[in-house]
Amino acid sequence: NGNAVGGQRKSCWYEEEIEENLRWCFALNSILHTGASQYQDIQLLDTKPFGKALVIDGKLQSAEIDEFVYHESLVHPPLLSHPNPKTIFIMGGGEGSTAREILRHKTVQKLVMCDIDQEVVEFCKSYLAVNREAFCDPRLELVINDARAELERREELYDVIIGDLADPIEGGPCYQLYTKSFYEFTVKPRLSKGGIFVTQAGPAGIFSHTEVFSCIYNTLRQVFSHVVPYSAHIPSYADTWGWVMASDFPLMLNADELDLRIKLRIKGENRYIDGKTFTSASTLSKAVRNSLDNETHVYTEGNARFIYGHGTAYKHK
Amino acid sequence: NGNAVGGQRKSCWYEEEIEENLRWCFALNSILHTGASQYQDIQLLDTKPFGKALVIDGKLQSAEIDEFVYHESLVHPPLLSHPNPKTIFIMGGGEGSTAREILRHKTVQKLVMCDIDQEVVEFCKSYLAVNREAFCDPRLELVINDARAELERREELYDVIIGDLADPIEGGPCYQLYTKSFYEFTVKPRLSKGGIFVTQAGPAGIFSHTEVFSCIYNTLRQVFSHVVPYSAHIPSYADTWGWVMASDFPLMLNADELDLRIKLRIKGENRYIDGKTFTSASTLSKAVRNSLDNETHVYTEGNARFIYGHGTAYKHK
Amino acid sequence: NGNAVGGQRKSCWYEEEIEENLRWCFALNSILHTGASQYQDIQLLDTKPFGKALVIDGKLQSAEIDEFVYHESLVHPPLLSHPNPKTIFIMGGGEGSTAREILRHKTVQKLVMCDIDQEVVEFCKSYLAVNREAFCDPRLELVINDARAELERREELYDVIIGDLADPIEGGPCYQLYTKSFYEFTVKPRLSKGGIFVTQAGPAGIFSHTEVFSCIYNTLRQVFSHVVPYSAHIPSYADTWGWVMASDFPLMLNADELDLRIKLRIKGENRYIDGKTFTSASTLSKAVRNSLDNETHVYTEGNARFIYGHGTAYKHK
Amino acid sequence: NGNAVGGQRKSCWYEEEIEENLRWCFALNSILHTGASQYQDIQLLDTKPFGKALVIDGKLQSAEIDEFVYHESLVHPPLLSHPNPKTIFIMGGGEGSTAREILRHKTVQKLVMCDIDQEVVEFCKSYLAVNREAFCDPRLELVINDARAELERREELYDVIIGDLADPIEGGPCYQLYTKSFYEFTVKPRLSKGGIFVTQAGPAGIFSHTEVFSCIYNTLRQVFSHVVPYSAHIPSYADTWGWVMASDFPLMLNADELDLRIKLRIKGENRYIDGKTFTSASTLSKAVRNSLDNETHVYTEGNARFIYGHGTAYKHK
Repeated sequence: NGNAVGGQRKSCWYEEEIEENLRWCFALNSILHTGASQYQDIQLLDTKPFGKALVIDGKLQSAEIDEFVYHESLVHPPLLSHPNPKTIFIMGGGEGSTAREILRHKTVQKLVMCDIDQEVVEFCKSYLAVNREAFCDPRLELVINDARAELERREELYDVIIGDLADPIEGGPCYQLYTKSFYEFTVKPRLSKGGIFVTQAGPAGIFSHTEVFSCIYNTLRQVFSHVVPYSAHIPSYADTWGWVMASDFPLMLNADELDLRIKLRIKGENRYIDGKTFTSASTLSKAVRNSLDNETHVYTEGNARFIYGHGTAYKHK
Repeated sequence: NGNAVGGQRKSCWYEEEIEENLRWCFALNSILHTGASQYQDIQLLDTKPFGKALVIDGKLQSAEIDEFVYHESLVHPPLLSHPNPKTIFIMGGGEGSTAREILRHKTVQKLVMCDIDQEVVEFCKSYLAVNREAFCDPRLELVINDARAELERREELYDVIIGDLADPIEGGPCYQLYTKSFYEFTVKPRLSKGGIFVTQAGPAGIFSHTEVFSCIYNTLRQVFSHVVPYSAHIPSYADTWGWVMASDFPLMLNADELDLRIKLRIKGENRYIDGKTFTSASTLSKAVRNSLDNETHVYTEGNARFIYGHGTAYKHK
Repeated sequence: NGNAVGGQRKSCWYEEEIEENLRWCFALNSILHTGASQYQDIQLLDTKPFGKALVIDGKLQSAEIDEFVYHESLVHPPLLSHPNPKTIFIMGGGEGSTAREILRHKTVQKLVMCDIDQEVVEFCKSYLAVNREAFCDPRLELVINDARAELERREELYDVIIGDLADPIEGGPCYQLYTKSFYEFTVKPRLSKGGIFVTQAGPAGIFSHTEVFSCIYNTLRQVFSHVVPYSAHIPSYADTWGWVMASDFPLMLNADELDLRIKLRIKGENRYIDGKTFTSASTLSKAVRNSLDNETHVYTEGNARFIYGHGTAYKHK
Repeated sequence: NGNAVGGQRKSCWYEEEIEENLRWCFALNSILHTGASQYQDIQLLDTKPFGKALVIDGKLQSAEIDEFVYHESLVHPPLLSHPNPKTIFIMGGGEGSTAREILRHKTVQKLVMCDIDQEVVEFCKSYLAVNREAFCDPRLELVINDARAELERREELYDVIIGDLADPIEGGPCYQLYTKSFYEFTVKPRLSKGGIFVTQAGPAGIFSHTEVFSCIYNTLRQVFSHVVPYSAHIPSYADTWGWVMASDFPLMLNADELDLRIKLRIKGENRYIDGKTFTSASTLSKAVRNSLDNETHVYTEGNARFIYGHGTAYKHK
């Protein structure tokens, strides 16, 4: 027909409002799969700049080319800081990448992954080839349940408990898994001697760290005697991201020793984390350090702090 | 993971630069199919506002919900103005919708559709269910060839010849099918007595009609003694579109007689064209009428006029 | 600094969501002025494709290059259909363009323009040079008030009453100025013998006319014995727009007589409206005609119909 | 008029193509100033997420809220590593922020800033209030010239030479200021004993560091015996950025000593750089470290490597 012709090929775009006034847009090759659970909408996109991207409720969860930065940062520092991590519990993590990184550790004998959303888990199992092996590993016990209920139900102890959850959000149930009382009365009792807790902790950029990172840090400081915040820039998130490790036992953070343990304990080669990388990641910049030192807010059941765009209840926990 | 949650669902968009400074964006449900021929890139998108959309080289060709406005306007006025149209020739039209509308006319005995791009034709045959029946009609003869070469090769005459081509474009071969010499020495000799030529004629809005519509009109005026321009607003094009009918015989345009012929000759019900609609469509507004009356430019081989964005050669003819 | 250099100059854009799934974007030269009243936000933008654009609450009101289509269509058909229009009342119209077109009619002796938003009026007076003369015309009486209250307060009669208001909107007071009871008990009693009412009537495209156009038409049909709907494509609105004229006296619509009256009564030359243009504009296409004929909805105080995006109360009346 | 009303306020956006398939968009408050020099287009925008933003040729140069990260990182590490920096030369830097940070050092007695584009300098002098004081400092000598010509013309030596230039770009002259021969024969001869050279070095993210950062590092390694790369995430750039320091004398990088020198030498308080921040910034992550170690490319006059979008000659040097 008449309206024909061009040359302008990049006509399909994924667009995300990172904040109300800030957009981040990826050219699309295709929309691979779409689905919906009772909790959320799920999409698998094939993007030009970042490869396959998992999008839940219109928010990028992870992108093929740089998810390793997030998942290695979440998993390896706590497992390497522990002298001999055998039993692990993941709250959330339905994508499977956190399990994949954990199962690379030869010390691990048992891994419980507890995600509330069966459809997300099935979707990722079906479509994320990179995690297929992990989902089949006999050490993995997959449970569909609320992470809090599951932890309270269980009697066994874990060497490492990992929070791979959505950020604390207004009106959503997830912030309950970031509160002082949850850490104190649910998580800590389930840690074995020398046990370590780690959680993703939201954006940790020069400005964005005040959204939730500093509060998560400060809340954990109320409950554990050793607390280590760290961060890394993740290109597809257009921000630096944060994690916090916590324990009542001293955390082993020496770069050379970390490198040694990586060599001894982890199958295959890390793409992101090594001793020096962790040294850099856990040495926060002046402004972030000062904010964290001066943070007074503590997450409690009745007193959450929120980040942008999280109006809908999100129960991917 | 942490970046989760939202509520912002319209995250995938098709975006087209209608002009250099003007964009038109549709929310996407999915990217149904993508393909490429030696001439052009082809996409079938499922858009939220306009349904399935055929996009060639990053330019919308036709959208499911309003392609009937374009195709009924292209086909029915010339066929209804003719006393008894039996043989028809389409230059271009690979999408199949033009053929579909022609084949609804009970008078039609033979239809030649000549498109240069086999892959576009195959793509549309496979994916555009609405035209499947037309592609199977025994009256249809489908030819893959350059329309000019095909018309010159053939000796038979046609009651109606239809130009369903891309607009005249810089550096592309299509403008040759809009020139005075082509109309005079290729098209006119292939029209039977009482024969009518019609062509899509580009944007015909209050400003955009000066891009090519007025020139196509003026060029046809040099060759035929009766020339009728008309236009209609097509929502998915974000513009009013134009067509021009031409003949060396008087064209029958009476609204009541058109309505009568529609009833007698066309199977099924038109969604757009009837007598009054055509009366309105062929009564141009003051500004457009004045431009057309005063247009002096004539398309010749060495002197084309172009519209935006058409830098790549386009041979869908 | 390092991030330098490009060639990509069209970096600033105005973006409007025409519908939830449809965006319309203009490259920007500059943001000329911004303001706010108690009712709404006001912006004057300098856009590349459409010149200066007045935007209220994020919605384009009118654009320099094609506002004449809207304002000539709103004003000239009713004034020309009237044998001798001397007194006119505008509900809304704070931009000044409607007044400008009215004041071109030599017959007009008195014009009341009643807009509720003083800031919008002041903003347009200051920044829209094209209407400056109109705002200074001694025949103009400018009133800041609710149009309904003002009409009810006044005792004089008007030859033409013009509704230049926002569309009927959910939760907003403007729909009250589109109801049967308002037309019957407020507007009609203020029309002189032979008096004509006209209102803008929202989008009137092949699909969009069902949003409000058909209902406004049907509502007026309950109150007046002669009702004439008409429409025109306005490029900057990316749609065809509608208006409805109504009277208890026959409306003069003959194209030649309209042309004669234009010559006799209007100073300067119309850019859009003449006899043939109006004939075309008032001859609706088949689908729209059928919808209007079959529309049964009538606007009443308790039963409005709405169009997209109009969640905020809007009192620009 | 009819098209009114909304609630959608974020209608004006700045949009930048960071890469061909990646866009970064800021909501706009206003377009403060626009200008053009013989070399480039200049805009000062007021953005919602990042404050005032200087845009040159459609590329963000620096944003009000985080330019301190870039400029403190460029200036303070080399000046603090030097025992007593008195004379400084900036190549480029027309914005004035680099000069502002340098002039905070009490040791500095003379600062030459050499930018080729007088209009950019005048524009920034007029509109960037934050640098007004720096532009008036009697220690500043502002020269409009090509940086290479100026360095070659001068006979005096500098304690620190700073490259605040655009990235090496295809077809542009700036890559000449990143070549081995320029460093060897123009820069090094102008450094005093113990002198330090530093340059911005383009994107340094987990993937983007291979565009130019690793090559700049490797090129400097051919010329200087001590070379220190470092990086920091800059939110408005949507990436981690890199710098490289180089000297033929050992560089002082001890965190405590850096903190001490900051206290003794710098007026006011740094917002970004302190000892620990620099330790983290100069400890690169595993992937980046490996790339830098294995980089073999050396910039020479005839063999540049380029980054996206830099098609136009850029001479802001």
